[in-house]
Amino acid sequence: MIAGAVPEPPAGERHPGDAAAETGRALGALETVAADLEERGTKAGGEAQDVLTAQAMMARDPGLAELAGQKIAGGSSAPRAVHEAFGVFREMLAGAGDYLAARVADLDDIRDRAIAVLLGVPMPGIPASDQPFVLVARDLAPADTALLDPAKVVGFVTEEGGPTSHTAILARSMGVPAVVACPGCTALAEGTVVLVDGVSGEVRPGPSADEVERARSAAAARTAALTVTGPGTTADGHAVPLLANVGGPQDVPAALEYGAEGVGLFRTEFLFLDRTTPPGEEEQEAAYRAVLEAFPYVVVRTLDAGADKPLAFLPAVADEPNPALGERGLRMLRRHPEVIEGQLRALARAAEALPVELLVMAPMVADAAEARDFAGLCHAAGIGRAGVMIEIPSAALRARDLAAEADFFSIGTNDLAQYAFAADRQVGALSRLQDPWQPALLDLVALAARGAGGKACGVCGEAAGDPALACVLTGLGVTSLSMSPPALPAVRAALAAHTTEQCRRAAAAARAARDAATARRDARAELPGLAALGL
Amino acid sequence: MIAGAVPEPPAGERHPGDAAAETGRALGALETVAADLEERGTKAGGEAQDVLTAQAMMARDPGLAELAGQKIAGGSSAPRAVHEAFGVFREMLAGAGDYLAARVADLDDIRDRAIAVLLGVPMPGIPASDQPFVLVARDLAPADTALLDPAKVVGFVTEEGGPTSHTAILARSMGVPAVVACPGCTALAEGTVVLVDGVSGEVRPGPSADEVERARSAAAARTAALTVTGPGTTADGHAVPLLANVGGPQDVPAALEYGAEGVGLFRTEFLFLDRTTPPGEEEQEAAYRAVLEAFPYVVVRTLDAGADKPLAFLPAVADEPNPALGERGLRMLRRHPEVIEGQLRALARAAEALPVELLVMAPMVADAAEARDFAGLCHAAGIGRAGVMIEIPSAALRARDLAAEADFFSIGTNDLAQYAFAADRQVGALSRLQDPWQPALLDLVALAARGAGGKACGVCGEAAGDPALACVLTGLGVTSLSMSPPALPAVRAALAAHTTEQCRRAAAAARAARDAATARRDARAELPGLAALGL
Repeated sequence: MIAGAVPEPPAGERHPGDAAAETGRALGALETVAADLEERGTKAGGEAQDVLTAQAMMARDPGLAELAGQKIAGGSSAPRAVHEAFGVFREMLAGAGDYLAARVADLDDIRDRAIAVLLGVPMPGIPASDQPFVLVARDLAPADTALLDPAKVVGFVTEEGGPTSHTAILARSMGVPAVVACPGCTALAEGTVVLVDGVSGEVRPGPSADEVERARSAAAARTAALTVTGPGTTADGHAVPLLANVGGPQDVPAALEYGAEGVGLFRTEFLFLDRTTPPGEEEQEAAYRAVLEAFPYVVVRTLDAGADKPLAFLPAVADEPNPALGERGLRMLRRHPEVIEGQLRALARAAEALPVELLVMAPMVADAAEARDFAGLCHAAGIGRAGVMIEIPSAALRARDLAAEADFFSIGTNDLAQYAFAADRQVGALSRLQDPWQPALLDLVALAARGAGGKACGVCGEAAGDPALACVLTGLGVTSLSMSPPALPAVRAALAAHTTEQCRRAAAAARAARDAATARRDARAELPGLAALGL
Repeated sequence: MIAGAVPEPPAGERHPGDAAAETGRALGALETVAADLEERGTKAGGEAQDVLTAQAMMARDPGLAELAGQKIAGGSSAPRAVHEAFGVFREMLAGAGDYLAARVADLDDIRDRAIAVLLGVPMPGIPASDQPFVLVARDLAPADTALLDPAKVVGFVTEEGGPTSHTAILARSMGVPAVVACPGCTALAEGTVVLVDGVSGEVRPGPSADEVERARSAAAARTAALTVTGPGTTADGHAVPLLANVGGPQDVPAALEYGAEGVGLFRTEFLFLDRTTPPGEEEQEAAYRAVLEAFPYVVVRTLDAGADKPLAFLPAVADEPNPALGERGLRMLRRHPEVIEGQLRALARAAEALPVELLVMAPMVADAAEARDFAGLCHAAGIGRAGVMIEIPSAALRARDLAAEADFFSIGTNDLAQYAFAADRQVGALSRLQDPWQPALLDLVALAARGAGGKACGVCGEAAGDPALACVLTGLGVTSLSMSPPALPAVRAALAAHTTEQCRRAAAAARAARDAATARRDARAELPGLAALGL
């Protein structure tokens, strides 16, 4: 369970008299929080680090410090001053109608941490436990989840979040069952025994001995299935390369451990975010080489930044009312050609003299003109295979036009679902629409795979890591699957248990359905090997 | 031309000594701005009023007043204090990376207005002119455009904005040519004669006598074409009802004047926004009746509110990082069934005893389950024809599933393009992707029209008001077109000049293209009547 909230310091609480000392305490607490968030980020790495570094910047905001100092000059105690300083911003944002800022919840989390430091109470977070437990929470803050001990958490249940939420992705990367968007779960009493079925989405408090037994044997069958190794292939020998999503050189060992045949999505943001000067081409080259030398086949995605992931060494991004619909990805890179050209040169040099097949793709490509521009940049840099992410509906609809310009496709199902259903990945209440089993999403995957016209068309969204969906995607004509490394064994087993024809029938059954639950049920009915494997 | 910016009050500028009086001046200026914005809103009505009322709330924000008061207590002059108070919020928003708030530009506009009041200089805006002029600007603030004199402005040219931007929509509703997203246009010297061609998107400074002559004769042909009246029909007699988009009873006269055969989109937000108590059912009924009694056929859209258009009488909407991808439209109404049920009851009663065909549709419907729920609510309220907006890509992709639940479709091309291309309507730099001629958007329209399977499928986005595109939409199988009333005559003339077969060929030509410009050119080549009409 998540610990309770930090108490609000009483209104009118005053400091003993030395305003300068009190201001020092307040600023010290904010700095402690900033440093703690940064440290958690450094330990966690990857995407968690980006989020935590942005939070740390917020705690160090000079406007906030100034406001707290003014409150203390007026007599307020440091905790109360911090509370009120955050409150001014919060009220303005929440009260101004059209002017809501993103993520006020994160602001509250920073405030609570700073006040906890000042009061000498524990920071909000996950209490220590000496035995493994199921973590039940309203939602999980990035700061809390970044450093979870995988040996302690045997399952997640949250009231909020969707299938592509932070929690769900984290659970998948840890290989533990998770049920998100489970209303009322936080009413469970501490210490309740619960059975969490990540496949059916069921959470059962106080299960019978029988139920526990069935769950245990399913888990055992599953464990046995996951020992299979080797390249991805269907029962009839159709090869479906199984690849890893990696966020930097630190993810290489896990990808190798789980038998990835290559990298299907090498995210490169780690080199660019959270720094005030751009990375030099030599620094980039070394980082790329550390991944390229470990695999025979690597698909690199060029930098995906935007208003929600700004680059400190570039001029500030314009304020955008909806950053997810703004100048992110390739759109931003086209404003800063020196960044993308430098990245492509460094990639080409990193691959020189290595026996690796290097493929490079751009994020947020909407139409053929953008695909053509990007391919031109790649070829000019000496990169032979230039591809595009299919994560905008227009790109899937017009896949045939894009295939005339690009050498390969990689479908990003998370963003594609977000746009196809106009449903933010970060809004838990819309999780029904972010379900990768939604037939309309499968329609777009089918359009992209067909439009590819024989060129490679992989999937690198989280959908690829669902064993049943992996079979359906194969049936839709997808040519490779890239996922978090811990998801690879289950997908490998599921593919090996079914023929291409079974996958095609499962795909047709899913697309014939009118909703995600029916699509999933009808597809699974065509994939009898899943149940036998406990998947 | 837009007047220059308001100067920044010098740093360190101090007031004469009476802090209370100076604070009174600052608060008075903020209130003057708030009242002025509200007054402009009341005069303008419609959507402009919503935007201006939100800005007025911002000027009255208590956090802002408190901060300015603190600065004045510290000795700052009122103009400097206002500047710095806005600066604190601005800096926090702009400096916090992930935490950018929407529309900082609007914040700056309010600040400049308040400082102008304090300095006794004119508020920023459009200078008076005693002869008609072409308005050239970087972009237009809602406060500036709301009260433009249509007799004075003969054309618009802006550097920013897209085809569905505020400026473009305003120009269309005034019936004057506009070119948006025209880089460098603000470098034109005051007093330059420019020719603005809203059809080709060309802006020519210092045109030759010949060019002016050609433009004049095209304008004359156009004027003659626009005198045609009667119901919408193709040259071969295929009826395409031409309907009006209205935002309330005040828009009825214009719709009648331009010969609308009915209302294709009756927006109902005017009854709900900017009030702290919900409208009673009797008040709603009277407002609905004022529109329903004027036409034989009216399509009403139920309330479309969300985090970017919050309702003051409901609990605050959760902060959303991307309001356009959040709980807006039907998603929000499902959280507040009393609002939608009351609206449907009032609509049913308003139509009783009137000879009107009433159709009611929901905004932001993503799948068949949502369509089914909404139809159930309508039928329970005694409304016979329940439909859905097709403005989310998934709804167009799965139109066949939705048609099994809904009685009719209305395609909202503006939002549909926004989601299909992941390109915010409010971001001028992405205007290329918001172009309604984009082939992928036409693909979605075709899918929706085909999926309707014989049920009515209209278009009520701004695309319907483009004469060439109106023919293409007809060729794609769209059954009615709804637009700003001033756009009706040109569309009527364009349809009357072409056969259904010509429309179909134009549609096929547009979909065969790979980009918007080619789609437009190739479709127009199949529609020879347009050039003859000067359209």
